[in-house]
Amino acid sequence: MKITILGCYSATPRKDKHTSSQLIEMNGKLFLIDCGEGTQMQLRKAKIKFNRINHIFISHLHGDHFYGLIGLISTFRLTGRTKTLNIYGPKGIKEIITLQLKLANSWTNYPLNFHELTSEISETIYEKESVSVETLPLDHRVYTNGFLFTLRSSCRKINSKAINGLNLKPYHFDQLKKGLSILLEDGTNIKNNELTFDPEKPKRYAYCSDTSYNRDLIPLIKQVDLLYHESTFLEKDIDLAEKTKHSTAIQAAKIAKEAKVKKLILGHYSSRYIDKNIFFNEASTIFKDVDLSEDFKTFLV
Amino acid sequence: MKITILGCYSATPRKDKHTSSQLIEMNGKLFLIDCGEGTQMQLRKAKIKFNRINHIFISHLHGDHFYGLIGLISTFRLTGRTKTLNIYGPKGIKEIITLQLKLANSWTNYPLNFHELTSEISETIYEKESVSVETLPLDHRVYTNGFLFTLRSSCRKINSKAINGLNLKPYHFDQLKKGLSILLEDGTNIKNNELTFDPEKPKRYAYCSDTSYNRDLIPLIKQVDLLYHESTFLEKDIDLAEKTKHSTAIQAAKIAKEAKVKKLILGHYSSRYIDKNIFFNEASTIFKDVDLSEDFKTFLV
Repeated sequence: MKITILGCYSATPRKDKHTSSQLIEMNGKLFLIDCGEGTQMQLRKAKIKFNRINHIFISHLHGDHFYGLIGLISTFRLTGRTKTLNIYGPKGIKEIITLQLKLANSWTNYPLNFHELTSEISETIYEKESVSVETLPLDHRVYTNGFLFTLRSSCRKINSKAINGLNLKPYHFDQLKKGLSILLEDGTNIKNNELTFDPEKPKRYAYCSDTSYNRDLIPLIKQVDLLYHESTFLEKDIDLAEKTKHSTAIQAAKIAKEAKVKKLILGHYSSRYIDKNIFFNEASTIFKDVDLSEDFKTFLV
Repeated sequence: MKITILGCYSATPRKDKHTSSQLIEMNGKLFLIDCGEGTQMQLRKAKIKFNRINHIFISHLHGDHFYGLIGLISTFRLTGRTKTLNIYGPKGIKEIITLQLKLANSWTNYPLNFHELTSEISETIYEKESVSVETLPLDHRVYTNGFLFTLRSSCRKINSKAINGLNLKPYHFDQLKKGLSILLEDGTNIKNNELTFDPEKPKRYAYCSDTSYNRDLIPLIKQVDLLYHESTFLEKDIDLAEKTKHSTAIQAAKIAKEAKVKKLILGHYSSRYIDKNIFFNEASTIFKDVDLSEDFKTFLV
């Protein structure tokens, strides 16, 4: 699972600071979370073949999280896309997009499926092969969801020590990964569990933006491998965070700590602060493994 | 009159190629024409104090001409704007913008006035002090207007030779510009026309994008000082130009020649062409004074 940050600033895009968007790559498939203005240019700059994106998840209908969506949809049309595009987002997103396509007399020449979200409790909105996506209800000024991405490994892991010297063929590896016993060319039958380990634990990534400090989130993101939690403000502006239903870096770290996540990424910074390292310093007083998101930075799970 | 090109490419924004937007500066006032995705970043890059823009003119509702508008409106809100913003554009533009503001629960804290256009013939849509703006009905796939900007000089021009040695005070200059006679300190009375010339002719700039080759335009832009005429295609793709209701560089030059404009700027290039100079070469076979628009290039009238 690879996460590429395309934008991690709040409110308005600046010359070299982009509003929220992230690309998630799993099993060779591309998923997009949020789509601030200019996301399609960011995808080009990151040299991502973005026509491979088939699923876009929009957290909420504040502009810094979706004003780039209509442009991306139009670009897909102009570059000859034929594959279905699935868009998951709050109720209303379909009306916004289709009104613009209607007035431009420019319907897409590919199927555009909207999955409008209204649930106030977590629900599974995507599940296919080894990947699932669940909503994480957040507490913001408008209806907002975070998203929990889970990548399950269905394959058993080969025990490289145990297979040493067995001269296995490629089909033996396929059988072992599937949990089957194998028959060697000399007629020996070996049980699967002698040559394999259990599959890896699922990899889990939680995207939580935008939200106030919200302890209801903790059970939903318990022990995830990676948590992106918004930290719009520093602690000196905690009043502003409360008023605007955003979080401080320390609040993000408290959630990370209580949920016992493995690693925390901060982001959605207010552009009022020049030095991002203060976010890191403040969060690190509470939680050990903190990292700062930056446009084009990647994270592996 | 100063024109700054913020974007001059058609269809989709690229890494370093932006879709349509231009800033017009007249008498210290800023006017914006069209607003493709990322225009607010282009304004920042050009170091323009864009909160001074009070009037935005949208030619038509294709995305490459207005997808950046909602973001700019939101940024005005977030940066504390209080002044009225006037938006001129095709019917429907108010619905698109207000729907997005409604769903984001983010109404502007400044007055937002929409002037929706439906006329099929040229009309004056702005007139104040020395500036006026008229629509130029264009022939495109959806309802589209170009815009004709006129800057009138109401001041008489001082004849610098004639005033030589007269030791005029600042208030004398004001009186002369207004067409008044002046009284020197020694009691001499001098008639205005002995010291001044008639005011300069109005400066006129015509923006015509997007449009097919459309000779109806010629009488409306007769002898303008500067014409921006779209040239999406080269001559070898004239069939495509006709089909999509765009123009070739040669067609733009033919309009410029027949309208006897002083200078022609080409733009709205399709990104299928690598070498923009071919647009210049083709247009120059028909019309003498051709120039190519480029992002951030400026033109003075």
